[in-house]
Amino acid sequence: MKLPETTTERIERKLDRKLRLIRVARGEEPADVVFKNATYLNVFSNDFCHGDIAVSNGLVAGIGSYRGIEEIDVSGRFVSPGFIDAHIHLESSMVSPAEFARAVVSHGTTTVITDPHEIANVMGVDGIRYMLEATESLPIDVHFMLPSCVPATPLDESGCALDYKAIDDLYDHPRVLGLAEMMNYVGVVNGDREVISKILASQAHHKKIDGHAPGLSGPDLNAYIAAGVYSDHECSNYRDALEKLQLGQFIMIREGTAAHNLRALLPLLNQQYYARCMFATDDKHPLDLLQGGHIDYIIREAIACGVDPVIAIKVASHHAARYFLMNNKGAIAPGYVADLVVFDDFRHFNIQQVYKRGRCVFAEGEVQPFTPAAVSPALSRRAHDTFRIAPVTAQQLSAGDLPVIGLVPGEIITQNLGQAAAPDPSRDLLKIAVAERHHNTGHIGLGYLKGYGLRQGAVATSIAHDSHNIIAVGTNDEDIAFAINRISALQGGIVVAEGGKVIAELPLPVAGLMSDAPLEEVNDLLEQAKAAAHRMGVSCGIDPFMTLSFMSLPVIPSLKITTQGVFDVDRWQYI
Amino acid sequence: MKLPETTTERIERKLDRKLRLIRVARGEEPADVVFKNATYLNVFSNDFCHGDIAVSNGLVAGIGSYRGIEEIDVSGRFVSPGFIDAHIHLESSMVSPAEFARAVVSHGTTTVITDPHEIANVMGVDGIRYMLEATESLPIDVHFMLPSCVPATPLDESGCALDYKAIDDLYDHPRVLGLAEMMNYVGVVNGDREVISKILASQAHHKKIDGHAPGLSGPDLNAYIAAGVYSDHECSNYRDALEKLQLGQFIMIREGTAAHNLRALLPLLNQQYYARCMFATDDKHPLDLLQGGHIDYIIREAIACGVDPVIAIKVASHHAARYFLMNNKGAIAPGYVADLVVFDDFRHFNIQQVYKRGRCVFAEGEVQPFTPAAVSPALSRRAHDTFRIAPVTAQQLSAGDLPVIGLVPGEIITQNLGQAAAPDPSRDLLKIAVAERHHNTGHIGLGYLKGYGLRQGAVATSIAHDSHNIIAVGTNDEDIAFAINRISALQGGIVVAEGGKVIAELPLPVAGLMSDAPLEEVNDLLEQAKAAAHRMGVSCGIDPFMTLSFMSLPVIPSLKITTQGVFDVDRWQYI
Repeated sequence: MKLPETTTERIERKLDRKLRLIRVARGEEPADVVFKNATYLNVFSNDFCHGDIAVSNGLVAGIGSYRGIEEIDVSGRFVSPGFIDAHIHLESSMVSPAEFARAVVSHGTTTVITDPHEIANVMGVDGIRYMLEATESLPIDVHFMLPSCVPATPLDESGCALDYKAIDDLYDHPRVLGLAEMMNYVGVVNGDREVISKILASQAHHKKIDGHAPGLSGPDLNAYIAAGVYSDHECSNYRDALEKLQLGQFIMIREGTAAHNLRALLPLLNQQYYARCMFATDDKHPLDLLQGGHIDYIIREAIACGVDPVIAIKVASHHAARYFLMNNKGAIAPGYVADLVVFDDFRHFNIQQVYKRGRCVFAEGEVQPFTPAAVSPALSRRAHDTFRIAPVTAQQLSAGDLPVIGLVPGEIITQNLGQAAAPDPSRDLLKIAVAERHHNTGHIGLGYLKGYGLRQGAVATSIAHDSHNIIAVGTNDEDIAFAINRISALQGGIVVAEGGKVIAELPLPVAGLMSDAPLEEVNDLLEQAKAAAHRMGVSCGIDPFMTLSFMSLPVIPSLKITTQGVFDVDRWQYI
Repeated sequence: MKLPETTTERIERKLDRKLRLIRVARGEEPADVVFKNATYLNVFSNDFCHGDIAVSNGLVAGIGSYRGIEEIDVSGRFVSPGFIDAHIHLESSMVSPAEFARAVVSHGTTTVITDPHEIANVMGVDGIRYMLEATESLPIDVHFMLPSCVPATPLDESGCALDYKAIDDLYDHPRVLGLAEMMNYVGVVNGDREVISKILASQAHHKKIDGHAPGLSGPDLNAYIAAGVYSDHECSNYRDALEKLQLGQFIMIREGTAAHNLRALLPLLNQQYYARCMFATDDKHPLDLLQGGHIDYIIREAIACGVDPVIAIKVASHHAARYFLMNNKGAIAPGYVADLVVFDDFRHFNIQQVYKRGRCVFAEGEVQPFTPAAVSPALSRRAHDTFRIAPVTAQQLSAGDLPVIGLVPGEIITQNLGQAAAPDPSRDLLKIAVAERHHNTGHIGLGYLKGYGLRQGAVATSIAHDSHNIIAVGTNDEDIAFAINRISALQGGIVVAEGGKVIAELPLPVAGLMSDAPLEEVNDLLEQAKAAAHRMGVSCGIDPFMTLSFMSLPVIPSLKITTQGVFDVDRWQYI
């Protein structure tokens, strides 16, 4: 066992770098790099200041008049602290953290705080460790909040269950900042001892606890906050957000692929309230990553809506750093990490250059090449081998009367449409199945789905919230079984199949959630699969895979389907 | 050796209280106490909100409509979070921490951050431990910053020298928040390895480092801040403060007994800058404590000068809590410590009631009785036995030609007035002596003082910055020797003597700095001693003892006197 570093050892390790920083700040030695003639956002005086920014060993040494070994003239442009995504699940990008980093760093993002909730539901602590290793040595810093709800509900057959003891060691990792979104707000306000213990554990480590409590209000909200939940990213209206802010929560204004809360929460982005706000995306899918931008997109939108640029940029940088106690991030000042974004003007807000610890990581439209750290072989093998499921036969899927789940276009809530006896594509009545795939239990939940539109074949995915079993929908049992087995053979992914043939597919061999391929390739395969599903009948208003992914989340009313069958969320029982 | 508490032990210890907090917040159980109909400052939404404030076990459980075992109607008045003094040396009050607490809690102060610099210069780590023990169980919370400069300079013969290793264990104390004012800014910017190690040690413990750098600017200021100094309380003009704020330092606006910086720094107390400001006093002498108020006085003055009350009160409460990472202080919201101040209106700003962790500690003009924790006997004996000095004879004080220090009325700087051969009270030329009293070295520094005004006898004090040897001034060697010996016999204090008789005296037997007596008694003795000194000729514009205390501080130009003699600060040599 390696003993923790002593104060003396730490001081020895840091002293020489600190002494050089001081000499550079005094002008006794040239800086590593100087950003000459910078007009930069001063997050302390809330205005744009002017000067040379001197950097030594990745830290800002001083601002004033400096010379450097390298000098970069940034006159005529603006410099901001790097942007921070306060809450995301990296797995939602379907690509490796390195590919994700490559995409967002070009948008000025230099730090994200991820909750590895999805992979933890598949691989437990190994999943968190995999993500920690896969996020070393990237051009962005990836910090972690430890998943609080694995499994998400007692109904879920996930790959793993984590109590506070299972994750306790991880709090000592320097990139772990706390406990991720406490979705089980019912458990919190009911005083569930195991749930409260998780909160107390994070507090014992002097770390944060993020919240997730859409619409929670009044005494229950007081209880949730008093328990120790410091933020919320589920506010979709101003009233909800203001109540939470007034009771002391930080508000993460979420604008991602699935949720768009910026416009509703614009009334927070003024002098009175903005100090308690940050930006977050929660999830970013491949197409949105490629075309939509990231935190820069939210800033641009906010400014276009009339928000003071100083406010927008501070919410995008300084405030998340402060909330998460990242003491030396989110500002351009002596001693701070030199994460810098150079942009053209407030209207276009084009990101021209990005510097991570003073090193150029993006310029002239190109992300600088980088070599991500390799994940240790054992952990990599483990992540690529997460399917424990015997081949499924059509016979296993045959059934008589089953409940019918009714899709609501554009929503993740569903309707209870009674019972049916068999699929009937002519009436848009499909069979839906969730096959347990972590422990080879042979559990397969069955039901019917109406409103999806598929007219032939089957669609399946191993991204199925939150336990990530295999969820499939189809017009006949043979195609459903084929699609499920194909996903198992791929070690995860998305499959569109018909008549024993793969029509389109996206392999996601990392925990059944992520690809090892480049983002562009993943996006192409995903879009091709989407197109195939739509050609086979899936209604145009429906995302064929994302919709399916949410059918297995047994906390959203009215009906959902798990490995145990169709569950009535309103009555909290299987039917 | 007691092993540190494990996460599991900590959770067990906290769980039941947390569960009750949640039940109270939900309204399932009555609160311990409810403040009914409160109009309270919401530091998050920056306005005054209305509701019942429910408290359980010293924490705010919820705000809304609540019932409690005890209910206190606060309608028609205002409620604010308790005030915080961001920087003080408790020893400056000359009374015990309990007496200090009794005085300031009536002014709405519920937390102070003290730097036990004075007692540490006498007793080293034992002095810090003494203050930690003497500040348990008070009606205010006393947090600590560890002295960074003991001795204050290499010239000082102090009782102790503390390097970073000597104080490292103390960072684990739950009330220690970091490293106190780094006065040795010359050492910092010159990259003194021992000095930088102290900063790195505090950073290694994830704690703050306070600054003290009057007038430091430009590259040197950049270096000082880059080294890791996060705040400054020495700003006496707006320009200096703005430069420090812009470079990332928090500004402690100081308004105490000696320094009055509020008016000069009023331009910081607006929307643009106030988020980075706090209030501090640095020192509070007995009379000022009794008559002047504390942080409430600064708020009242600021409001009278036109500062928005929301801004003034946040600077007085929330901001210090945030800076020092006191996560659950400085706000009225679920989970926060229920430190509450009830006041009448913004103009008079009369403090009517004060609650510490929900318990009344001040009401109707009376501080509620409390029993301070007893300091452990060994430590108490040690604190009352700090004089190691043999009796001084007049012969030891005789000398020929010596330098003359010229007082500048109202300043702590001095002038170099050449040499003299003997005291001559008719020309206001007195002898001044500093007698080493920690290690019985027999060192006595001698010189002459002009401008003090004494016409007969001698004045001496064991409060002599920063090493707290015995400093004495007099018209003749016999009276000086008598006064020094009397202070030694008292184990510290202030003495006015003539012709072998004590004319007035204030015993300060705790480390030669503090009394065990009530504040009123200490103040009476001190004022009587002042009056006696003035009757004996000390000029009316001069505080006889405070002036003397600063004569031994060898960092203020031009001439100062140490145990080694008169020191020329401008030329940095003894003369």
